[in-house]
Amino acid sequence: MIDKVVGGDGIDILYHLGLDTSSDLSRFSDTRFVVMGGSAERAASWAEHLRQRFAPTLKSPLSPFGKTERFTMFKVGPVISASHGIGMPSMRVLLHEMAKLMRYAGACDVVFIRVGTSGGIGSDPGTIIVSTTGMMGTLEPEYELIELGERRRYSARLDEGVAEELFCTAKRLGIPSVKGATVGTDDFYEGQGRLDGALQTSYTEEDKMKFLRKAYEAGVRNIEMEAPAFGSFCLQAGIRGAIVCCSIVNRLKGDQIESTPEQLSKFSVDAQRVVTEYIERAALNVGSPPAKKSRT
Amino acid sequence: MIDKVVGGDGIDILYHLGLDTSSDLSRFSDTRFVVMGGSAERAASWAEHLRQRFAPTLKSPLSPFGKTERFTMFKVGPVISASHGIGMPSMRVLLHEMAKLMRYAGACDVVFIRVGTSGGIGSDPGTIIVSTTGMMGTLEPEYELIELGERRRYSARLDEGVAEELFCTAKRLGIPSVKGATVGTDDFYEGQGRLDGALQTSYTEEDKMKFLRKAYEAGVRNIEMEAPAFGSFCLQAGIRGAIVCCSIVNRLKGDQIESTPEQLSKFSVDAQRVVTEYIERAALNVGSPPAKKSRT
Repeated sequence: MIDKVVGGDGIDILYHLGLDTSSDLSRFSDTRFVVMGGSAERAASWAEHLRQRFAPTLKSPLSPFGKTERFTMFKVGPVISASHGIGMPSMRVLLHEMAKLMRYAGACDVVFIRVGTSGGIGSDPGTIIVSTTGMMGTLEPEYELIELGERRRYSARLDEGVAEELFCTAKRLGIPSVKGATVGTDDFYEGQGRLDGALQTSYTEEDKMKFLRKAYEAGVRNIEMEAPAFGSFCLQAGIRGAIVCCSIVNRLKGDQIESTPEQLSKFSVDAQRVVTEYIERAALNVGSPPAKKSRT
Repeated sequence: MIDKVVGGDGIDILYHLGLDTSSDLSRFSDTRFVVMGGSAERAASWAEHLRQRFAPTLKSPLSPFGKTERFTMFKVGPVISASHGIGMPSMRVLLHEMAKLMRYAGACDVVFIRVGTSGGIGSDPGTIIVSTTGMMGTLEPEYELIELGERRRYSARLDEGVAEELFCTAKRLGIPSVKGATVGTDDFYEGQGRLDGALQTSYTEEDKMKFLRKAYEAGVRNIEMEAPAFGSFCLQAGIRGAIVCCSIVNRLKGDQIESTPEQLSKFSVDAQRVVTEYIERAALNVGSPPAKKSRT
């Protein structure tokens, strides 16, 4: 049971998913993993990849469930593949409604995993970064949200047990991998210290490098746009959460993405391979939890 | 010229749009309005609506330009219709790259308009709210972004001239309308004081009502997820920006959306009608600016 997730008594409309509790949600009760990626295209390619491993008898192409206006979701055996859009506000809408869906469906011991690309900090292109915690742009391991006019802070720590299993899985597959903190920002340009946005920046190349080195020293290994919101939500909801990203550029060496399209594609596939392998081993252990619980 | 927008000398890749400066971008040079809505579906329905008015000879259905993985964009005569996703981080990616596109194309005197739905604060369902400024959840008329670890604040004031013209257009069409501040939040649930998210909230129904009344007294007329980032970006970039939203619920009276699907659809269409009417009048004045400039 996802017992920290609040549910109402009346009909609850999961508005952005296009589902509600007046219909039978028990078809989601066997869900054990929700994998999330940025775009609808990634959710679909993930789903197809999972279909081949977990539900080869399902017809291809798969049909999404719910509505597709905001997010695109597929169910493949014990796995839901969903898109979360760009950034923490979009991610949180999905997390709220997906957590309620899991609760209403009566799903047990579900693990949420975000799989994506990111800028590496000291991590060369192709390296898999398994996150230990989300971090704000201030390099604090928290998520901040303004609620009724007041700033509130929540720990953005990720599940240790799942992170360790994913890290070991990557090692076993021979894919270069590290564990470390992941900074999530509210902007792709100035928010990540880029100098190639549309606006005149308040900082120089030198300032940027100084900050990126400071981040590395604070244990940051990559930077993307979702980690603190994802980590804090999972922790608050009592759902084990993990983030697995590949680095597509080492920001300590430059901002330009110099890998070929073939290399970039391989990096993404490597991150998916790690997660698929982890799910496969965990799903085979039906009845026992997929990883030692590091939280109660 | 969009002269506050920075452009590089080499080939610039507008990564999330799927365009770059190695191809001919002059087909965008006659763009005078960029209208933005949350989802790809809305961008497409908007584009179709605009086609009937501004480019009836274009074949339907229209084809999007650029890539569609992150945003979906259509060009219809002098108007681009684009989706921006959910929330400010997603919106800012579009704004950065769209502003650069307009600059590289040599487009002049472009107006950016976000058209959407929102929760009204003292504004009954169906009311059109034309924003005077974006406001953070703290009720300050600013946008805050963490850059290289430091919090920076930017005014989120919207263009007065365009707002006044849009407001008068709504009045002329007989659609109930108000001008006021628009709070943009980083979350749909706790960020907007809702009590029906997945997590136990730190506040009560009473706390929520107290905050919503305080917001109303501070001049807020609606609440959504993009206004401060949109307002501040346009101001920084020297692009006139406007936000036109319909209210789908008056949060001072309750949180439940009780309008019928037909009513909800009419509210959205009303917001589009106001903007289309404004564009039509402005576009007919070719050569002269669409509204008196309130900024230099």
